[in-house]
Amino acid sequence: MTVADCSFTVLDGAVCAPAGFVAAGIACGIKKSGAPDLALIASERTAAAAAVFTLNKAQAAPVLVSKERLAASGGRARVVAINSGCANACTGSDGLLAAHAMADAAAAAVGAGRAEVLIASTGVIGVALDRHRVVAGILSAANGLEAHGGAAAARAIMTTDPFPKEAAIAVESPHGRFVVGGIAKGSGMIEPMMATMLAVVTTDADVEPSLLQRALTQAADVTFNAISVDGECSTNDCVFALANGASGVKLGAADSGLLVEALRRVCEPLALGIVRGGEGATKLVSVRVTGAQSDAEAKRAARAIANSPLVKTAIHGADPNWGRLIAVAGRAGVAFALDHARVRIGDTILFADGRPFDERSEEASRHLQNDDIAIEVDLGTQEAGTARMWTCDLSAEYVRINAEYRT
Amino acid sequence: MTVADCSFTVLDGAVCAPAGFVAAGIACGIKKSGAPDLALIASERTAAAAAVFTLNKAQAAPVLVSKERLAASGGRARVVAINSGCANACTGSDGLLAAHAMADAAAAAVGAGRAEVLIASTGVIGVALDRHRVVAGILSAANGLEAHGGAAAARAIMTTDPFPKEAAIAVESPHGRFVVGGIAKGSGMIEPMMATMLAVVTTDADVEPSLLQRALTQAADVTFNAISVDGECSTNDCVFALANGASGVKLGAADSGLLVEALRRVCEPLALGIVRGGEGATKLVSVRVTGAQSDAEAKRAARAIANSPLVKTAIHGADPNWGRLIAVAGRAGVAFALDHARVRIGDTILFADGRPFDERSEEASRHLQNDDIAIEVDLGTQEAGTARMWTCDLSAEYVRINAEYRT
Repeated sequence: MTVADCSFTVLDGAVCAPAGFVAAGIACGIKKSGAPDLALIASERTAAAAAVFTLNKAQAAPVLVSKERLAASGGRARVVAINSGCANACTGSDGLLAAHAMADAAAAAVGAGRAEVLIASTGVIGVALDRHRVVAGILSAANGLEAHGGAAAARAIMTTDPFPKEAAIAVESPHGRFVVGGIAKGSGMIEPMMATMLAVVTTDADVEPSLLQRALTQAADVTFNAISVDGECSTNDCVFALANGASGVKLGAADSGLLVEALRRVCEPLALGIVRGGEGATKLVSVRVTGAQSDAEAKRAARAIANSPLVKTAIHGADPNWGRLIAVAGRAGVAFALDHARVRIGDTILFADGRPFDERSEEASRHLQNDDIAIEVDLGTQEAGTARMWTCDLSAEYVRINAEYRT
Repeated sequence: MTVADCSFTVLDGAVCAPAGFVAAGIACGIKKSGAPDLALIASERTAAAAAVFTLNKAQAAPVLVSKERLAASGGRARVVAINSGCANACTGSDGLLAAHAMADAAAAAVGAGRAEVLIASTGVIGVALDRHRVVAGILSAANGLEAHGGAAAARAIMTTDPFPKEAAIAVESPHGRFVVGGIAKGSGMIEPMMATMLAVVTTDADVEPSLLQRALTQAADVTFNAISVDGECSTNDCVFALANGASGVKLGAADSGLLVEALRRVCEPLALGIVRGGEGATKLVSVRVTGAQSDAEAKRAARAIANSPLVKTAIHGADPNWGRLIAVAGRAGVAFALDHARVRIGDTILFADGRPFDERSEEASRHLQNDDIAIEVDLGTQEAGTARMWTCDLSAEYVRINAEYRT
């Protein structure tokens, strides 16, 4: 089956939209505010599992434990447990014990094998995770698992996120209908360095673990790994995928392109939701780079632009300051030819062939009043390398959130 | 002569502290506010000249013109002309004509040869430089050149700088006394990528151009290239050095270490002044990285920390959030061993050997209330690589300044 043989429909719902998944989200007292801080997502049968983890070398205890269990199970899992309010990172051997306790409790609570579990934590780094609270929370959440629990789970994994991120699609294929759903959280320490936040994607398609892993990696590359809020890369980032086969639709190696596309269609709105809900963000900015010597160079330039505080503050102020885009492209460490470079904001070309068109500033400024901004920079090498990233503006609210995060 | 043979005394004054230099700073109408926007610095005799330029590939017209003239003169100059309020960058062939006119006017105004001139511009990118205003300004400034004009020149090159940056020292050496002075401006688009802002350093020592160039490059490397305000690298950055020999003290290849040290002692306070006066900055932060596999890896990690918005906002909020320092070190792309890593804020160790010491948070928080902050991160590789960078905190004021820069 290829993408062209199928039709895709956006659904309400999230991780429980595919058949055979249940979820819950509750408060177990990790967050002092009493807000929901524990999510459990379970499959009624053992599912193929795949994961993409942070490349940060200071990996949190739950990342280490999830890697270990995923390897031990040979890419199978039945349950995902996630707490917010504490990252359980840089917490030494006590942190590792707490993470194992969390995994053991989740596996036991749903009757899964010890290795059939994935866990994640998000919140402040370096604070001890209260093992008793999280274990009690998991047992209590397990009692509340239900087919409509996806929204509660999406809320329970939030930290500074202004809104929960959920997405789901149905795929009508020649072999039958299957569904893909997902949840994600942001919203600081978001950088495109592989896995970049927490997300869980579920599907009732029947997929082998190795194929699921390859497809997840590809889908994450053009979605979660193409966003940036602040150029940071967390100690805890993971994307998990579970495929439980409950739809009866089997996807094999020949359907790989379809599986990637189905995952991408769920991951992209989740990723864009992370950017839109980035700390202090008021605008979603698409950065497209063309005219690079290679796609890799284009991505490097797009990333530099997406992480530039001067670009992000100018966009925040609706200032069509295209000179900053040129300045960042020029310092991005990639081939760049000023004489042929071009900058477009919205539909307005502000600089081309070495010449500014400042008389068009007002037109570009009007585009920058929108919530969704499009920026395009051609590096002028006259080669065909392109890339796309999404980012948000940088506001005083970002500073306020992060200056006062722990107070 | 070596450094040990000499004594160093801090002087008042700046580019005119060495004998035989005159300067002026005036308003010529480039800035709409009517603030000073044109500086002229001249040597009474032709001086050896050296320069460090931005590595940005989108180089401004004055950078191209200064490079050309410096090459044509074989490392000699008599006058430096700098305007603020307009960067004359990304301004095409008209911009290049304006830059040449600026250089020609400055050379003619002081009776120098056509090649014996350096120019620089700073301000908004992509706006045409009014050639007639800048030429008229140069002629008028030339009439006002005086031995006490250094302070006015330091003011005239400011853009968003909250205060002017000046420094000078006297060196008592076995061969006699000579003086080094300098001015600099920041304060946004400051990144350690070689030359990082505008600065002019003068000395009345007698130095060959090639030695002056080598010494300036070395001094800039541990001063101007070791600071970061916002991780940006401008299209216009230059550091110029002029040595006119008016003291009669000749420095040869054997005095190279002394010359570097003398330049360093002027460049460091100028560089720290740029950070202290960084856009929206309220604190000067020294970032020291130890335990790296090499000095280059240490610098890479120090740079990542110095540019991290999460680190900079935490410092702004006086939050001893050492976990963010570990997270940045872990993603900096260098060897890192969490088990042996260590974080110190002021004199307080907050994380060592994989274990947090959160009970010391309050002590570290008290240090973060100071204006001058010291941070040290050991990467835990048990190798000897070290580096130091200076940065500032990230405040809501930075966002305000840069969101409203052109409005």
